Amino acid sequence: MKGLFTLSTVSSEKIIEIIDLALRFKRGETKVSYPGKSMATLFFENSTRTQYSFQMAMIKLGITPVSFSSVGSSLAKGESLYDTVKTFEALGVDGVVVRHSKDGYYRDLDSVRIPIFNGGDGKSDHPTQTLLDLMTIYEEYGRFDGLDVCLVGDIKHSRVAHGNAEVMKRLKMNVYIAGPDEMLDDTAKVLSLDEAVEKCDVINLLRVQFERHSEKLDMNEAEYLKKYGMTLERVSRMKDKAIIIHPAPINRGIEIQSEVAECEKSRIFKQMTNGVFVRMAVISMVLEDKL
Amino acid sequence: MKGLFTLSTVSSEKIIEIIDLALRFKRGETKVSYPGKSMATLFFENSTRTQYSFQMAMIKLGITPVSFSSVGSSLAKGESLYDTVKTFEALGVDGVVVRHSKDGYYRDLDSVRIPIFNGGDGKSDHPTQTLLDLMTIYEEYGRFDGLDVCLVGDIKHSRVAHGNAEVMKRLKMNVYIAGPDEMLDDTAKVLSLDEAVEKCDVINLLRVQFERHSEKLDMNEAEYLKKYGMTLERVSRMKDKAIIIHPAPINRGIEIQSEVAECEKSRIFKQMTNGVFVRMAVISMVLEDKL
Amino acid sequence: MKGLFTLSTVSSEKIIEIIDLALRFKRGETKVSYPGKSMATLFFENSTRTQYSFQMAMIKLGITPVSFSSVGSSLAKGESLYDTVKTFEALGVDGVVVRHSKDGYYRDLDSVRIPIFNGGDGKSDHPTQTLLDLMTIYEEYGRFDGLDVCLVGDIKHSRVAHGNAEVMKRLKMNVYIAGPDEMLDDTAKVLSLDEAVEKCDVINLLRVQFERHSEKLDMNEAEYLKKYGMTLERVSRMKDKAIIIHPAPINRGIEIQSEVAECEKSRIFKQMTNGVFVRMAVISMVLEDKL
Repeated sequence: MKGLFTLSTVSSEKIIEIIDLALRFKRGETKVSYPGKSMATLFFENSTRTQYSFQMAMIKLGITPVSFSSVGSSLAKGESLYDTVKTFEALGVDGVVVRHSKDGYYRDLDSVRIPIFNGGDGKSDHPTQTLLDLMTIYEEYGRFDGLDVCLVGDIKHSRVAHGNAEVMKRLKMNVYIAGPDEMLDDTAKVLSLDEAVEKCDVINLLRVQFERHSEKLDMNEAEYLKKYGMTLERVSRMKDKAIIIHPAPINRGIEIQSEVAECEKSRIFKQMTNGVFVRMAVISMVLEDKL
Repeated sequence: MKGLFTLSTVSSEKIIEIIDLALRFKRGETKVSYPGKSMATLFFENSTRTQYSFQMAMIKLGITPVSFSSVGSSLAKGESLYDTVKTFEALGVDGVVVRHSKDGYYRDLDSVRIPIFNGGDGKSDHPTQTLLDLMTIYEEYGRFDGLDVCLVGDIKHSRVAHGNAEVMKRLKMNVYIAGPDEMLDDTAKVLSLDEAVEKCDVINLLRVQFERHSEKLDMNEAEYLKKYGMTLERVSRMKDKAIIIHPAPINRGIEIQSEVAECEKSRIFKQMTNGVFVRMAVISMVLEDKL
Repeated sequence: MKGLFTLSTVSSEKIIEIIDLALRFKRGETKVSYPGKSMATLFFENSTRTQYSFQMAMIKLGITPVSFSSVGSSLAKGESLYDTVKTFEALGVDGVVVRHSKDGYYRDLDSVRIPIFNGGDGKSDHPTQTLLDLMTIYEEYGRFDGLDVCLVGDIKHSRVAHGNAEVMKRLKMNVYIAGPDEMLDDTAKVLSLDEAVEKCDVINLLRVQFERHSEKLDMNEAEYLKKYGMTLERVSRMKDKAIIIHPAPINRGIEIQSEVAECEKSRIFKQMTNGVFVRMAVISMVLEDKL
């Protein structure tokens, strides 16, 4: 199988190579174009950023995006993911981007010969999100080695948290986690958020699906923000060069105080910009058999 | 903020300039192209004409349209209009077209640096609809000054009526309104429809959401058509050069007798054609800082 | 009216000409491009293959596809098919592809001047599906004359079955039908499926909407497969060169054993590939007034 499925099988050297190419795309130093190629985005779960970011990456690479909407498709007739992907392969697209709720859905697709780009699978992986987070950190510090990062929020249910933690450790970052006990697991050493904001170079917030947890947590949104969210007060205690990242969509007033989203330390919208360049790099490297 | 939000802040001279450029695009006298640019259509209310007309305008200008569908997006996760627009800005599009049910939604978007084109906000404005109505009138008469126009139908709930009336008065047209008492307000002097068809150079029909009003009006569709709709009989009493316009979608058999839609005096489908050229003109002028 | 509506009015010579051009497109022998043209896909029924296949055909011909989604459109305001098609004509597209549940919907569209390509109407026709089936057969045998073909499954409710049978007979193929009595009509001579697999050069499976028939049939899916479905055992009794085709989406485990879909005799995914080239041929011939 060709494509990008999970970063756990991609070497650290290759990850640095992807980020390096993304940065060159961003600075306009490298230009490549694949006219005549087309790729389909097949999203079976909600997405704004990932879906349109991949489309923008295709457009910038001269690739025609074909946007498959599961509404109005033969999915309504019960067609499987496998048959849908095989159909797009038969139709002649040069690659597909897939988001699906099933962990490791791509393991069912091993007879597909065109590249598959994982746009998120179940609770497992979201490799281009991890790459854009890393690119944003690298752009800030020029290195990963020795940086302290804390993943904050619903670690247990986050594909971003698990994917990020694995790669960040490999890149020799010191990884911590913070959040309500109910949302933590053994991904990394636990810090309190107040310890984390003073100690870390990167605060990696995660989306909290508050409505799913509100009863168990026994608190309202404002209380959650005060205890576990990123407030301006906590921002004021961060180190000079430290930054805040978040995969978005953000829940203003829950895991992040609204004003923090666009404060000086936030890189949340910059991450979205970087995501387009990271996806350009991933697509380009796969098309040229370098990934 | 760059873009087009409401015509109430655009001078009459500038409006004429837009229409003039649109006519030159239509006649093929002016050709401009913006290769490498992309723009997103973000429609949070139903639309066929406006959404696809903007897409066609982009295509004709060499701009790649990115069509955001609120179905299957992170809106399902509660993302706000503001965060959605900021996301598309971060993804690198060169402009967005927005339709939203909130009056003046764009006033929340003042930190957005890319151009925003208003595709309709609440009950307030629909500036490109007004422009294409004006272009259609101008194409017919070569002037606005002194023309009699009657807005017919549900004036009170129509963003088109209010936007059109304001600009038409500024362009020295004589504006009247007609319709059931329940649907009228103080936008302009009231005429009976039978007076209007004999007096006016332009009959500007509006869409009537009959199902919302049927109870209060105490009449059925056929009775509405007979009393307040444009019938062939009324068409026969119009002045020689007079024309009928309508923003569409039309309700055949309610505010307009089906045969009238494509009669010799109707410009309803011509308006749709003109809409593409008006939107090309607006996009082009904004990109070149002339609007 | 220009376009392709039903093959029943297209001569056998013309059908061969379409297939021949499609094969030349597939082999890369013929290249044509229509830059600056755009076409809209207007699908009012679910579809994956037909909709995206037409889009791919447009892309390969340099035509910009405009994908109309009935979700979020003015259909929600009650706009008719006629007014929707007239709208896209007015917006300036150079053709429309329409799928609609109404038999012969295109007979209401005779005032439309741009080409209309029928992507399926009610229970009547699906001309490009028939063409891609024929292309796949022709690619295999180099002729139609004298070939035995059996349509298998729900003949009565299938637009593909009726369209295919009519044209196949005209091309001098010997047409048979097989399936449960409840699903057969007088389209052609009836065979048992076990006779058919041993006799025929082409087994043309049809999609069975099992849930609609399960009660009347008084059997479960496994029993249906055993009695009326294409199993590996039946495949083993087919003639050496014989092939299986299916319009898809397939119901694995109902009308076809899952393993059969990608067995050596199946041309199901090849059909999808051929569909793109057939649609390129149809669009190109219509644009050049050869169809």
